[in-house]
Amino acid sequence: MKIGFIGLGEMGLPMALNLLKAGHELTVWNRSPQRAEPLVAQGARLAATAAEVCGKAESGHADAVFVMLADDTALRQVLEAGGVLAALAGPTVLVNLATVSVAYAQALAAEVAGKGAGYVAAPVFGRSDMAAAAQLNIVAAGAAGAIEQVLPLLQAMGKKIWPAGDAPERANVIKIAGNFMLASSIEMMAEATAFTRAHGIAAADFLEVMTQTLFAAPAFINYGKLIAEQRYEPAGFKMQLGLKDVELALTAAGTARVPMPLAALVRDSLLDALAHDGTDKDWAMLAQTAARRAGLA
Amino acid sequence: MKIGFIGLGEMGLPMALNLLKAGHELTVWNRSPQRAEPLVAQGARLAATAAEVCGKAESGHADAVFVMLADDTALRQVLEAGGVLAALAGPTVLVNLATVSVAYAQALAAEVAGKGAGYVAAPVFGRSDMAAAAQLNIVAAGAAGAIEQVLPLLQAMGKKIWPAGDAPERANVIKIAGNFMLASSIEMMAEATAFTRAHGIAAADFLEVMTQTLFAAPAFINYGKLIAEQRYEPAGFKMQLGLKDVELALTAAGTARVPMPLAALVRDSLLDALAHDGTDKDWAMLAQTAARRAGLA
Amino acid sequence: MKIGFIGLGEMGLPMALNLLKAGHELTVWNRSPQRAEPLVAQGARLAATAAEVCGKAESGHADAVFVMLADDTALRQVLEAGGVLAALAGPTVLVNLATVSVAYAQALAAEVAGKGAGYVAAPVFGRSDMAAAAQLNIVAAGAAGAIEQVLPLLQAMGKKIWPAGDAPERANVIKIAGNFMLASSIEMMAEATAFTRAHGIAAADFLEVMTQTLFAAPAFINYGKLIAEQRYEPAGFKMQLGLKDVELALTAAGTARVPMPLAALVRDSLLDALAHDGTDKDWAMLAQTAARRAGLA
Amino acid sequence: MKIGFIGLGEMGLPMALNLLKAGHELTVWNRSPQRAEPLVAQGARLAATAAEVCGKAESGHADAVFVMLADDTALRQVLEAGGVLAALAGPTVLVNLATVSVAYAQALAAEVAGKGAGYVAAPVFGRSDMAAAAQLNIVAAGAAGAIEQVLPLLQAMGKKIWPAGDAPERANVIKIAGNFMLASSIEMMAEATAFTRAHGIAAADFLEVMTQTLFAAPAFINYGKLIAEQRYEPAGFKMQLGLKDVELALTAAGTARVPMPLAALVRDSLLDALAHDGTDKDWAMLAQTAARRAGLA
Repeated sequence: MKIGFIGLGEMGLPMALNLLKAGHELTVWNRSPQRAEPLVAQGARLAATAAEVCGKAESGHADAVFVMLADDTALRQVLEAGGVLAALAGPTVLVNLATVSVAYAQALAAEVAGKGAGYVAAPVFGRSDMAAAAQLNIVAAGAAGAIEQVLPLLQAMGKKIWPAGDAPERANVIKIAGNFMLASSIEMMAEATAFTRAHGIAAADFLEVMTQTLFAAPAFINYGKLIAEQRYEPAGFKMQLGLKDVELALTAAGTARVPMPLAALVRDSLLDALAHDGTDKDWAMLAQTAARRAGLA
Repeated sequence: MKIGFIGLGEMGLPMALNLLKAGHELTVWNRSPQRAEPLVAQGARLAATAAEVCGKAESGHADAVFVMLADDTALRQVLEAGGVLAALAGPTVLVNLATVSVAYAQALAAEVAGKGAGYVAAPVFGRSDMAAAAQLNIVAAGAAGAIEQVLPLLQAMGKKIWPAGDAPERANVIKIAGNFMLASSIEMMAEATAFTRAHGIAAADFLEVMTQTLFAAPAFINYGKLIAEQRYEPAGFKMQLGLKDVELALTAAGTARVPMPLAALVRDSLLDALAHDGTDKDWAMLAQTAARRAGLA
Repeated sequence: MKIGFIGLGEMGLPMALNLLKAGHELTVWNRSPQRAEPLVAQGARLAATAAEVCGKAESGHADAVFVMLADDTALRQVLEAGGVLAALAGPTVLVNLATVSVAYAQALAAEVAGKGAGYVAAPVFGRSDMAAAAQLNIVAAGAAGAIEQVLPLLQAMGKKIWPAGDAPERANVIKIAGNFMLASSIEMMAEATAFTRAHGIAAADFLEVMTQTLFAAPAFINYGKLIAEQRYEPAGFKMQLGLKDVELALTAAGTARVPMPLAALVRDSLLDALAHDGTDKDWAMLAQTAARRAGLA
Repeated sequence: MKIGFIGLGEMGLPMALNLLKAGHELTVWNRSPQRAEPLVAQGARLAATAAEVCGKAESGHADAVFVMLADDTALRQVLEAGGVLAALAGPTVLVNLATVSVAYAQALAAEVAGKGAGYVAAPVFGRSDMAAAAQLNIVAAGAAGAIEQVLPLLQAMGKKIWPAGDAPERANVIKIAGNFMLASSIEMMAEATAFTRAHGIAAADFLEVMTQTLFAAPAFINYGKLIAEQRYEPAGFKMQLGLKDVELALTAAGTARVPMPLAALVRDSLLDALAHDGTDKDWAMLAQTAARRAGLA
């Protein structure tokens, strides 16, 4: 298929590579064009503008345009100011892979529908190594026809596609709730290990028992390892991004009148962490923060 | 071996049965003696007093005395007023399976040492069905010799024994921290599903994605199921006991000057739950509480 | 002086009346023009558009334009879309009486400076009865010359003017922090009275002791009275507005990396309150919410 | 009247002096007898044992015995092990001035009633300088006759006596709730000033506005001054004691199933403070803790 791909960061680049490997025709764009080199080397075309990846009536519209950007602001800038929305046409399905706010997810879906194009929200669970290995979990929501059109593409990038219904923002709600659970899992281990350390038990010893029994799941195994080793750089997921996601949860919860005291608590811990350490550290730094509060760090 | 077993509740009874099945000579005691019937039917001896399970110099001391009681108060009553401590002698290892406070764990270990007997703290992770299937995870701490003496017995009751060092209270610290993590996991799912429900996504749909991916671990699969089905009776673990354990964490954290805001938050949610519903419900009721706060219940 | 006044709500109307009483020449505007009747009856002129209150070069620019609107959105709409900013000119000082976000306070000050006009942020503490009695406490920040120009006008509306420095947003920071303290005071009394009630002591009895001793200040006397009498309607300050202000604190705190766990807690209590009761109740309803959580309401 | 007084700490000593000044016959006891010197110099008798202050049938029972000790443990030790309870007789009213747990307040009242003696719980609000000036606020609960008997004595030590009903523990509930409000007030100012400081406004400038307007009450004026001056030594009320009182609130709230998230939050802040600074600092140190969390300290 003919595909556009915008946003070649740590997640976007390996995902685009997987589409290329699957034999699709790829036109890519990134703010810093040098990020596209590995793709161009394997046959992708580098567009001069973001809008260009959508194709044209004469040369043929793209079947799908994927967007993987950091947040609402970046997305808005590229899609609106960058002319992508204006360039979208009927045959194309815009696939938004980014974690965006529920409010913007709704607004964007409406705008794309207004262009007659398809829209699928497809936020992903997984870090860049899982993106490279096509092992992402992808939650996909949108009109059945649009999802069907892009399903083989999503499958080329993910381990499993989780359908989430017709309304695109449903996928974003699930993604935001999932990231809230991740953040909470780190806070939980942060407090538990501050507690065990204060009683003379090393974080590694405690977490070994937990992550091999009741908590033998990736969220705990992966972050437990970082916490046990106090290894917060290089960041797999930066505190700053974690804060953004927890704030997305709080905002969407507020709109729906849902108190989320645990989300509020994690936000405060992340602010505390950010006030003390650089924004480039992994959000597993919450463990350091809990230790500092207990006078242990 | 010659074994005493005190406390035949929902956990104690199946654990004692497993010791009997393993071919050991069992003397048991329970406040309500009728609970002992299934054991007596299979050859156990029912003691008239708790102290009696320790054996005597003339007839032979027990090799191990297991105690599985609800809390510090129950334990204190049986061990002190009930004369068990007084009846302990050198050859016996007292194995405390209960979840007790860190402070009492330390005090008890010292008292037993004063009698010349051995002491092992061996709190367990798992509910009664896992106890019946000898699938418990048992954290064991105490002097190496004492642990060695009772290891085959613990193995007869558990799937895996996790050694936790010489100081018995270390096992209790791990157990308390683990139960804090369980409680936090429920709170996390409670808030996340209140959030997704308020945005039109059923708890079951959201939790299916989570518990098959990042959170594919027993803590989330088991409690996620209860939450998705809003099935809070019969309780696998009662709110009241959950509150007790979270308070054990808060108390031991306070002594060590460790702020645990998440533990405090869960305590408040449990109080809220208990103020509205009977103490006999499962602590997965936290999901109901989060939903009520959001006007959804 | 020649004055424009935009926003004749529960606060704006009595404040504008006080300017009129002080002998100034007033041109007013409000979305619903009928709100202006009491002012017109006493000699004010009703403008056809918001921009009109700024005056013109030919007929003379206003010396001051006051704006008292609900939030950033309302303000932005009137000032930008409504053309007020475009109509501002050198001699005029724009006085923003509203509680706005720190970020917008900064942006607005810059925009007004760009027009060559003066800008004073002058948020007020006090409810509508205090506005009517010219008993408001007004925090004023901005360039010294601009403040000097409008000082007699502020004095006509307030009991005391609190200078807060050159940077206009400083007044907004103080106002937001003050409202956070008010919200926290209500939460504090809410929890304390749930506690005393659960122990058989009426809220009124407890609050009488407090508000005549350590807490003998308006924040506690006024809200304590509402709580003791469970009188939440008509609202002196609506929950919805309280939520807005606490969220202003949380947002500005986030930007500056300041954890404010108490602000987060109050936000959750307000969400809980709003999820159960109408948005028209007074934010003293937090007392009802705390009582409900304890099973007392 | 013939009076016994036990506990001559920072509060007890000036209170006893006021009784002496009022012309009463005083027998005093303190663990460190040298604390009694200023009293003995003015005519008080120093008892050899705590029990002795109760008097005897032959020489005459005391009309009232006052006790001012640090906590449940200290009180229990002196009253039980120290023989005071055993020495109490019909004509005497035991007046407990200390801040004790609700549970112990109830138990103690029952024990004293069992001796046929009277019992009044009379916890006080105020620091040692207010004790010296007889400016304390004293909340008094107990049987009407018992209160009547000691009222002139309480009046000699306080500015105002607040009757709180028949059941003695009611006075303790009020005292505990009041101290929770004090602790919350400090936390509130701590967070608010971290927020304003991060936005360039000195704590003193912000607190000046607040404590002269909405928060013009002793709780805010006194602690606001300490916070503005960052003066945490010598402590008027030590963090350690503040923690004790907040924990009394949490415990009594738990028993009554009342969630108090703000009390839990303050406890965590106090633990954080204690984990970093000595126990001898004033609990206004919460301001330092909030600043540290924001990277400002």
